[in-house]
Amino acid sequence: MKKRSRGASVSNRLRPVGVIRSELLSPRGAPTQGSEGAPDAWLEVHRWAAKGLHRLAAGDEIIDVTWFHRARRDVLRVHPRSDRRIPMTGVFATRSPDRPNPLGFHPVTIRAVEANRLRIGPIEAIDGTPVVDIKPVLRRES
Amino acid sequence: MKKRSRGASVSNRLRPVGVIRSELLSPRGAPTQGSEGAPDAWLEVHRWAAKGLHRLAAGDEIIDVTWFHRARRDVLRVHPRSDRRIPMTGVFATRSPDRPNPLGFHPVTIRAVEANRLRIGPIEAIDGTPVVDIKPVLRRES
Repeated sequence: MKKRSRGASVSNRLRPVGVIRSELLSPRGAPTQGSEGAPDAWLEVHRWAAKGLHRLAAGDEIIDVTWFHRARRDVLRVHPRSDRRIPMTGVFATRSPDRPNPLGFHPVTIRAVEANRLRIGPIEAIDGTPVVDIKPVLRRES
Repeated sequence: MKKRSRGASVSNRLRPVGVIRSELLSPRGAPTQGSEGAPDAWLEVHRWAAKGLHRLAAGDEIIDVTWFHRARRDVLRVHPRSDRRIPMTGVFATRSPDRPNPLGFHPVTIRAVEANRLRIGPIEAIDGTPVVDIKPVLRRES
């Protein structure tokens, strides 16, 4: 790829770096958190981005960052967990997929690394969910 | 805003929901992590998105998600922390701002809430950094 100079204007368009391949095919019935009985899945990284996986290894904890491509972006308040008994709450205080920029954070463990894909889990994201970033787990040292 | 039906195609363009107002004016000399002596700052939420802050309160721990608008998006390997003594590493194993989708995660504490802005910290993001999402801190329960 051609190098751009630092300070050049950066497009605000996300470019998927990969995709989730999971046995979960629909949001219906999928757990709302990975820890609630979600399965393992494959994170398949597109070939152009596979170099970015260098030095990731089985056992590492990462945040898989997804883009909820079926979300509603015009929602600012929700009943958390779609439970009408919980009072309406600003989306920034919740994990609702419906929000102005529908980014999903999935803290997962890498089970295995195979060329351009990672076996990860547990993860509640459904099959076909675009992946936009992968990060080492955040630790708060202060 | 007009409601769209679920399943409608979702644009992959990020829309900033706010901006960081900080005494840090340049990446030069800014700490690379909030825990390394960074100051507190204001997270100013744009008025159209301010309803999303409902129920956030002083003392809450959140992840401020930023967009590194000065980053390079064509970088897949880096020396972590720009230290040439550390071997080249895939960006997905690092917190490098240079990466295909330059999202920044900043775990911070809310110090105060004032109408459409949050006092947060410590945070290493520089003045003018666009904010694209705010999330409650991730906890791994499993």
